Amino acid sequence: MATAIKTFNDLLLHELSDLYSAEAQIVEALPDMVTAASNPRLVKALKEHLQATKEQVKRLDQVFKILGEKPSGEVCTGMKGLLSEGGKLLRKAGKMDPAVLDAALIGAAQRVEHYEIAGYGCARTYCKLLGLGDCEQLLQQSLDEEGEADKLLTQLAIGGINTQAMAAGGQA
Amino acid sequence: MATAIKTFNDLLLHELSDLYSAEAQIVEALPDMVTAASNPRLVKALKEHLQATKEQVKRLDQVFKILGEKPSGEVCTGMKGLLSEGGKLLRKAGKMDPAVLDAALIGAAQRVEHYEIAGYGCARTYCKLLGLGDCEQLLQQSLDEEGEADKLLTQLAIGGINTQAMAAGGQA
Repeated sequence: MATAIKTFNDLLLHELSDLYSAEAQIVEALPDMVTAASNPRLVKALKEHLQATKEQVKRLDQVFKILGEKPSGEVCTGMKGLLSEGGKLLRKAGKMDPAVLDAALIGAAQRVEHYEIAGYGCARTYCKLLGLGDCEQLLQQSLDEEGEADKLLTQLAIGGINTQAMAAGGQA
Repeated sequence: MATAIKTFNDLLLHELSDLYSAEAQIVEALPDMVTAASNPRLVKALKEHLQATKEQVKRLDQVFKILGEKPSGEVCTGMKGLLSEGGKLLRKAGKMDPAVLDAALIGAAQRVEHYEIAGYGCARTYCKLLGLGDCEQLLQQSLDEEGEADKLLTQLAIGGINTQAMAAGGQA
C-alpha cells in the first residue's frame, strides 16, 4: 500500500495522490452536508462546491495525464479524519436547531477547505520548481477556488448564519 | 461521549473542546517530527512551534476558565487523521533522503496549521458575536501565531528546502 517517496518527483506524486483521494472522499461526503443544511445560501454554496470539487478531480486527472502517471490509490487519512468529524456532527443533526447546525456545518466545511488549501499550495509550489507550468496552472486554479470557497463560507457565517444560530439556539 | 450541541454557546464549547484535543495531540506528535527533520531552520521552527502550541493550550485553559467550563474530553478525530497521515510519513522516513523528508514534513505540518487556522477562526468569530472580548483576544492571538507558523513553513520550503529536496532526491 505505502508508496516509497525517494525523489522530489515522488513527493509531488504523493501529494497529488493524496489530493485525489481527498477530493474523491469529499465528492462522496458533500451531498449529506447539502441535505443537512437549511440556509438557502449555504445550500447553494455547498452544492456549487460539489460541482467545483468534481471539476477539481478532472483537473487532477489532467495533471496525472500530463505527468504520464496514475494516483497511487492510497487513502488520504487526513481527509478521512476530517470527514469522520463531519459525520459525527451529522449524526447529532437531528437534535440540533437548524441554524446552529448550519453554523457547525460551516466550521466543518472550512476545515476541509483548509486541508485542500495546504495540499494544493504544496503541490502547486512543487510543480513550479519542477518547471511543470501546465500542472502548476491547473493546481493554482483549484487552489484559488478553495480560497474563494473558504472566504464565501466566512461571509455566510458572519453575514447572518452565526447571528441566526445565536438567536435560534439561545445562549448560556 | 458525544456532547449535545443545542445552542450557539454549545457550539462554541464544542469548537473549543475540539481545539483543546487537537492541540494536545500536536504536543504529543511534534517531538517525533522535530527528530525526523534535518534542516536546522526547520528543526528550529518546529521546536518553537512546540513551545507555541503549549502556550496555546494554556490560552485555551484561560478561555475555559473565563467561561466557567471544561473541555468535553471528546477526541478531535480530524487532527487524529492528520497526525496519522504524518505518522505514515515518519514510518517511511528511514528510506527517504533527508531533504525530501524535510519538504514532506513541511507539507504535513502545514495541513496541521491549516486545521487550526480554520478552528481558531470559527471559535474567535463565535466569541466576538457572543461579546466575549477576552476570549476573542486570546483566540485571535493563537490564530495569528498559526498564520505566522504557516507562512514561516512556506518561506522555508521555497527559500531552500524544496530546492535541496529536488537536488538531493533527483527527479523523474
